[in-house]
Amino acid sequence: MEMFDGLKIYGSGNYLEGVTDRDSLFICAVATTETSRIPGITGAGASPELTEYTPAADVELIVHDAPRCLPEIPQTIVEGEAAPTPAVITKAALELAEVPFMVADAGASVKPDVPYININSEPGGDIRTGRAVTEPQRIYERGLMVGRTLSSLTEHLVVGESTPAGTTTALGVLTALGYDADFRVSASMPHNPHDLKREVVMAGLSNAGIEKGDCSREPFRAVEAVGDPMIPAVAGICMGSTVPVTLAGGTQMTAVCALMRAIDPDFDFSDTAIATTIFVAEDSTSDINRIAEQIGDIDIYVVDPDFGSASHRGLHEYLNGSVKEGVGAGGAMLLALLHGIPVEMVRERIEELCNTILA
Amino acid sequence: MEMFDGLKIYGSGNYLEGVTDRDSLFICAVATTETSRIPGITGAGASPELTEYTPAADVELIVHDAPRCLPEIPQTIVEGEAAPTPAVITKAALELAEVPFMVADAGASVKPDVPYININSEPGGDIRTGRAVTEPQRIYERGLMVGRTLSSLTEHLVVGESTPAGTTTALGVLTALGYDADFRVSASMPHNPHDLKREVVMAGLSNAGIEKGDCSREPFRAVEAVGDPMIPAVAGICMGSTVPVTLAGGTQMTAVCALMRAIDPDFDFSDTAIATTIFVAEDSTSDINRIAEQIGDIDIYVVDPDFGSASHRGLHEYLNGSVKEGVGAGGAMLLALLHGIPVEMVRERIEELCNTILA
Repeated sequence: MEMFDGLKIYGSGNYLEGVTDRDSLFICAVATTETSRIPGITGAGASPELTEYTPAADVELIVHDAPRCLPEIPQTIVEGEAAPTPAVITKAALELAEVPFMVADAGASVKPDVPYININSEPGGDIRTGRAVTEPQRIYERGLMVGRTLSSLTEHLVVGESTPAGTTTALGVLTALGYDADFRVSASMPHNPHDLKREVVMAGLSNAGIEKGDCSREPFRAVEAVGDPMIPAVAGICMGSTVPVTLAGGTQMTAVCALMRAIDPDFDFSDTAIATTIFVAEDSTSDINRIAEQIGDIDIYVVDPDFGSASHRGLHEYLNGSVKEGVGAGGAMLLALLHGIPVEMVRERIEELCNTILA
Repeated sequence: MEMFDGLKIYGSGNYLEGVTDRDSLFICAVATTETSRIPGITGAGASPELTEYTPAADVELIVHDAPRCLPEIPQTIVEGEAAPTPAVITKAALELAEVPFMVADAGASVKPDVPYININSEPGGDIRTGRAVTEPQRIYERGLMVGRTLSSLTEHLVVGESTPAGTTTALGVLTALGYDADFRVSASMPHNPHDLKREVVMAGLSNAGIEKGDCSREPFRAVEAVGDPMIPAVAGICMGSTVPVTLAGGTQMTAVCALMRAIDPDFDFSDTAIATTIFVAEDSTSDINRIAEQIGDIDIYVVDPDFGSASHRGLHEYLNGSVKEGVGAGGAMLLALLHGIPVEMVRERIEELCNTILA
């Protein structure tokens, strides 16, 4: 099903009408966990230690055209090749769509040098300990308030995230809630370290005394043990909103949906959708659809910026799976399409940014 | 000039048309300084030490119906009589007007237990030292960004503040910028301790090596030496906004206007106004008009909730000058009027809240 050039729809597509050409607000939830320091688990940072700077650097790049917390632009580096951060995709698309951008701190260890909405200050721990997130229900409740307030100011919320190693914590929450997500979560590198992710999650569940599915009626226990603080924050924003919410991200957003479903088994997903990139949707190492369909009827909107046609070499790395999504890149591109911007124009603007602020 | 029952207008009144019945957003900037610990300088707290809890407790009361950082409701207590916090006025008026409420941290030492926009984390010092605020220009620039973003989501911003001892820091900034504000700033108690305020400001100016008017071309130096972090934060929000901004507060907001004027001598105040209560405007111990007229053509909107007609005894304390303004009470009541709510209904709702959440 294609209603816009460059857009694929998995699901009914009914959600789209309510968000086409509407006043929109993009929120990027930033969070970190010590899980991202596990060597080999994420490509979102030049070294394991630097992964905790990535969310701050990404949103600083969007707001200030340059990172401030780090001397260099965040790059996803795999096997020596540098792919530009997905933050440039988000920046290009939002600027073209003229959609305002806000940052929400869901628990980032490095605070970005931009004004942000404080939902939660404390970053997550290493999920192998089985004690990952402090007071997840409080984070969720604060997210609810933010969703309620922000949705009174716009007709459509788009919520992206930047959470290094977030697919591992997503796998943790999905597993604790009883979903089959093994070998289905995505990765920020061509080789998806499924065995490592599974091992890390299993260590955390074991240390928390949780078996698969044990938390289906105690959803916050799943987050507390093996999640990250972004998940309850974004679930809260989404459930507090009185307008449609596009969850802009890959398989991590299925963990958000799973938490919402566990908090409210009757939650109606008709005003909620996931938007992501073609790089996640067609990733042979993961399967967002097979996760989402276990949770509910959730439309998934997939944007293909056709980076094969880009002349900027770094963007070709996306085609190799070096990086697939992040900072709500897919949802930001969807916003551009919904505001009448052709996908080619988005790609051209991304290339321009790569050749200027990233050069 | 009266266009709404209960509203007095000092100035042209031209500003009003652009904000009547418009989508509005109320932001409360919270900040503290160690200046509020000087005994006798403020009534905003049961003891000098507790004044630093007042901003957090006030916004918690608005959001949660009860303070969370303190076991008790903040009250302005003078000579044993308790006047209800102006936060109940703000809460009543905003709920009737159905205007969303957001909190911005401009530098509060006690962080409120509500989601807030982080503009600045660090509270101000004791201005007697002459080193009051760290990096005021950075605070201003972050305020600019917040003003730009929030104004893209609404047609009218109303910015209130909660800053104990804020009239003293306002006097400091006004004096350093060259204005005659001595004996003209307001106070949160019937006896206005002008001599103490003047002494505190003069000590700060002296320690900073500043004489009256010295900072007119270095406005941030005035804030750095003898100001508070709310002033540059709100100046930034106002100057960054692309929609009309109502500065909801008493004489403290004249210091914000003075800073704006010093930053941009050509600043056009036609899209900026001050809104306050009758208790400030008719205070015989202060003179907001005589301060404002030195700065520029700034409309001042004054709301009279006629607390003389209230049956709640605590509200009568406002008539004695026990408390006059705060948490943007005057601006919140103006918003109610602009949304067609009669001032009697606002007063009745305030009484209801006094008899329920404050009882």
